[in-house]
Amino acid sequence: MTQTIEQKLIAIREHMTAANLDAFVVPRADEYLGEYVPEHNQRLLWCSDFTGSAGTVIILKDRCAIFTDGRYTIQVKQQVNAQHFEFYHLIDTPHMQWVSEQVSAGANIGFDAKVHNLNWYHDSLATLTEKNINLVAVEQNPIDLSWSDRPVPTKNKGLLLAQKYTGLSSLEKRQQIGACIAAQGADVVIISALDSIAWLLNIRGKDIHCFCVILGSAILAKDGSMTFFTDPDKIPMGFAEHVGEGVTIVEESQSTASYQALGQQGLTILADPETTNAFSQLTAQQAGAMLLSGSDPVALPKACKNSIELKGMQQAHMRDAAAEIRFLSWLEAEVAKGNLYDEAQLSDALTDFRATGENYIELSFDTISAAGANAAMCHYNHMNDTPAMLPMDSIYLVDSGAQYLDGTTDITRTVAIGTPSEEHKKMFTLVLKGHIALAQMKFPEGTSGGQLDALARQFLWQQGYDYDHGTGHGVGCFLNVHEGPHRIAKNSNSVPLELGMVVSNEPGYYKQDEYGIRCENLIYVVEKGNGHDGKTFYEFETLTLVPFDRRLIEKSMLTEVERNWINHYHAQVNEQIAPLLTGSDLDWLIDATKAI
Amino acid sequence: MTQTIEQKLIAIREHMTAANLDAFVVPRADEYLGEYVPEHNQRLLWCSDFTGSAGTVIILKDRCAIFTDGRYTIQVKQQVNAQHFEFYHLIDTPHMQWVSEQVSAGANIGFDAKVHNLNWYHDSLATLTEKNINLVAVEQNPIDLSWSDRPVPTKNKGLLLAQKYTGLSSLEKRQQIGACIAAQGADVVIISALDSIAWLLNIRGKDIHCFCVILGSAILAKDGSMTFFTDPDKIPMGFAEHVGEGVTIVEESQSTASYQALGQQGLTILADPETTNAFSQLTAQQAGAMLLSGSDPVALPKACKNSIELKGMQQAHMRDAAAEIRFLSWLEAEVAKGNLYDEAQLSDALTDFRATGENYIELSFDTISAAGANAAMCHYNHMNDTPAMLPMDSIYLVDSGAQYLDGTTDITRTVAIGTPSEEHKKMFTLVLKGHIALAQMKFPEGTSGGQLDALARQFLWQQGYDYDHGTGHGVGCFLNVHEGPHRIAKNSNSVPLELGMVVSNEPGYYKQDEYGIRCENLIYVVEKGNGHDGKTFYEFETLTLVPFDRRLIEKSMLTEVERNWINHYHAQVNEQIAPLLTGSDLDWLIDATKAI
Repeated sequence: MTQTIEQKLIAIREHMTAANLDAFVVPRADEYLGEYVPEHNQRLLWCSDFTGSAGTVIILKDRCAIFTDGRYTIQVKQQVNAQHFEFYHLIDTPHMQWVSEQVSAGANIGFDAKVHNLNWYHDSLATLTEKNINLVAVEQNPIDLSWSDRPVPTKNKGLLLAQKYTGLSSLEKRQQIGACIAAQGADVVIISALDSIAWLLNIRGKDIHCFCVILGSAILAKDGSMTFFTDPDKIPMGFAEHVGEGVTIVEESQSTASYQALGQQGLTILADPETTNAFSQLTAQQAGAMLLSGSDPVALPKACKNSIELKGMQQAHMRDAAAEIRFLSWLEAEVAKGNLYDEAQLSDALTDFRATGENYIELSFDTISAAGANAAMCHYNHMNDTPAMLPMDSIYLVDSGAQYLDGTTDITRTVAIGTPSEEHKKMFTLVLKGHIALAQMKFPEGTSGGQLDALARQFLWQQGYDYDHGTGHGVGCFLNVHEGPHRIAKNSNSVPLELGMVVSNEPGYYKQDEYGIRCENLIYVVEKGNGHDGKTFYEFETLTLVPFDRRLIEKSMLTEVERNWINHYHAQVNEQIAPLLTGSDLDWLIDATKAI
Repeated sequence: MTQTIEQKLIAIREHMTAANLDAFVVPRADEYLGEYVPEHNQRLLWCSDFTGSAGTVIILKDRCAIFTDGRYTIQVKQQVNAQHFEFYHLIDTPHMQWVSEQVSAGANIGFDAKVHNLNWYHDSLATLTEKNINLVAVEQNPIDLSWSDRPVPTKNKGLLLAQKYTGLSSLEKRQQIGACIAAQGADVVIISALDSIAWLLNIRGKDIHCFCVILGSAILAKDGSMTFFTDPDKIPMGFAEHVGEGVTIVEESQSTASYQALGQQGLTILADPETTNAFSQLTAQQAGAMLLSGSDPVALPKACKNSIELKGMQQAHMRDAAAEIRFLSWLEAEVAKGNLYDEAQLSDALTDFRATGENYIELSFDTISAAGANAAMCHYNHMNDTPAMLPMDSIYLVDSGAQYLDGTTDITRTVAIGTPSEEHKKMFTLVLKGHIALAQMKFPEGTSGGQLDALARQFLWQQGYDYDHGTGHGVGCFLNVHEGPHRIAKNSNSVPLELGMVVSNEPGYYKQDEYGIRCENLIYVVEKGNGHDGKTFYEFETLTLVPFDRRLIEKSMLTEVERNWINHYHAQVNEQIAPLLTGSDLDWLIDATKAI
């Protein structure tokens, strides 16, 4: 029987009382601290009904509060019962600051160290200690103890990814990262990031929707040997031979003893205080280990794709382009016939075109299929409500992608449905000009994405417009469609763009209650080779090969350089994708890629 | 009698021995931690002969090392005697790391807490403590004890700056900053930055060449009352009335007791750990004060000029433009007559033109007057060697500025001497296109200089060129020509550009051993007022009003927008500066500002 929120809170509070806790902190994250959380670890959702991708709940003895960001101000009030919860903005009211003001000195604030990172732990400890309040790590999570119908974790077998896709063997990767660890003066690194582990072992899994990983955590030693804490049932046949020497599989529940052992041996442990859970680090530290704070040593090598991975990404993008083009060709024909489908039908149709492609595994994220005004919400999901029908004389935004054995795709196209307005064309062209400016930019080695971000915004800015999201995120190779350490955004980090990094180029414009526009291709960094004065210069190559809707381009707003870029890009699309198409789809492509 | 370096080192080491020190650290900075160091505080120069603007010396019992950055790799070896000093790059070999490897556990490393900031102290303490080495604050600096012919500090009277220049009274400023201090939960702020103190008190001084401040440090309380530790002899008549209630002058040597008193009262002290010296903070802390780390609360209000200051800056720039134009007109006539002067003569001539202007005080920095290949060194100083003669058919770079009662100027012009080459014109135009791109950019509130930097580099980047300096620095109002907290640079901070901030726009290009180009105007931030979707947009107004050399502009490389910008700018220069000129200078201006 499903528990009500009231029943859930009663149960949680009983366990809190038993553990002598005055409050308990529930973040959205699970043990792996990633963007995606499997169903059985959706603790925040379970105790609050909030489905958003960021937030924290704090349960006190007689009150509850939920902290969310600006994206969810409206949604949280729709989903979460105000009878039980108070609502706060997580920037204006930091949750640990808030709780420190609700309890008295000497109070005990419980947390599960497995679902927080070390930075959160240290910051929270400082906030509470100042007021003589205790931060108490629970042995067992009160949510887990209270969750009567908790879903059972999947038992799906993982998949061994052949070297023809990865370019490097697991042994080579582990030795390479091991050397990085040693160079930093550490003995081992503890990794919670699921994609880092999948990359190291050349395995993929089916434990999380759209994100092809196996749940678990890992210790990698400087000699390249690795312990993978996971459910051994999920390890496929041939694993040992596939990964090569030095990999041990240990039941995830036994990891605590291993972390303690690191301490008992007095080892120096490298860990990323943002991406590695606090539990593993604190357990090792309490047993005598020395902690060395540093970024996940897998993140950068994983982001810099090797030539085999780039070849795979290119091939995956060609098949993906063929699917997207067949969808756009079909859509245009249907609209011409007067058949206006709803967002769900369109999304499903696009998925069907993709799913027939070679090496297709699954989508890389839930398709954003947004008709008319819905596209003004940049993270719109038609599954949250009744899918809207396409209105005539509007624009339709579709942001989608897939996981293939040889690569991951992510593309947004905005297309005319009927006759677009002059405003649609003007705003689309401003967005496209920004897309082109970034796509054709050359830049010196050492340049970060944050330095390039304004190039994609400049034409919108000149006319007093902007978009409230980043311009680009890293993309994995048959892995996470959102991948660090690089990005192209306003408040970016200073990580330079390096050779082989894949990143999205997706400026947009959103007019509330009216329409939304986004032009997104994936691009990757190559050397340009014409640097003067001893400088090395980079530029981007484009992976995505799908026409931009010529009906939305206001030609008079383009410079000659921009017009040449579009014509050259469309010629390249035609040349590479035409051989994969036939009949009306091929006709559509030929028409859609004509020079402007 | 002047001491030799050998004699100096012997003397220093005797004082080190007396204080039981195994090493002593000598930074370039003095008590005020600023960019400019008065002669009597040039301790690094005195003990090493190194004149560069950044570096550290470490004196051991039997060896010395000097640490400098990439700009000074060659210069340091020319100036510093290798018999006494080892040379290190301060990035590759951090000086405290290095010294920790030269001494044994238990050794004492001496430092003068007055000439380091708190961040340096904490970092150094961590580095040394790890190796059981002691960081020992000296009571008296061994350099000062050894410096037999140390210059006497100036006794120049300060100047009271009228409210018609400052726009706000000292009392208003102090109350405003006092409220900021209170809002941060502090009782007082300790300030070492000389320009922050000058701004708070509306005073200027003559203690440092080109930098119009009075030496001293200060404590400002949350009620706006202020203690200024300085030489009381320098305080001009009428000071008390000028600054209003609540300002106490205390002999600088008595400041220690005041810092201790802050601690004894148990106050919370705000201080900027980068710009406030460690001595004041540690003294107060040891006496019982609580330290609150935060940025100098004066920096941001000082940077955001009020309307009176902006009006003054505009007027100062008009007079400065008239002087620069008279110089350029004279230079062109002299070159036409075949009179090619040397860099010093040119620099002096330009200063003479400036010095006749109303409200002129002094230069705002040493003029960079660089003929031919010398301009390839971006911080060239003709006074370091025999000044070069202008070569014919070359380009001449002159970067200069002045302090006026109503404002500070900083301008670089690069002009043709004879007939420039096609390469000169191409590279000048690429630099100018970047200058224009930044000058005419609109951007949303909250944008930092780091986000805009690439706009000024994009045209150089596209052809594989770049420049190795920032694009823009903040500029004070009759204050420091290099002012924070904002800047426009690759590795910028995230401080947003705010209304009233003045910043330079100075892209360049430097070809080693051949030539240098820089196009520099000062610009300031204004509201644009055409933001859509509820967004506020800013843009720049230009302060500097001097033509760019049309002989160096390759018109075919400019877009129509760029050509319009240049023509509009030149029309504005003509309109505003022509009334200040007569005769051949006026003729020159009319010709130099013709539309292209």
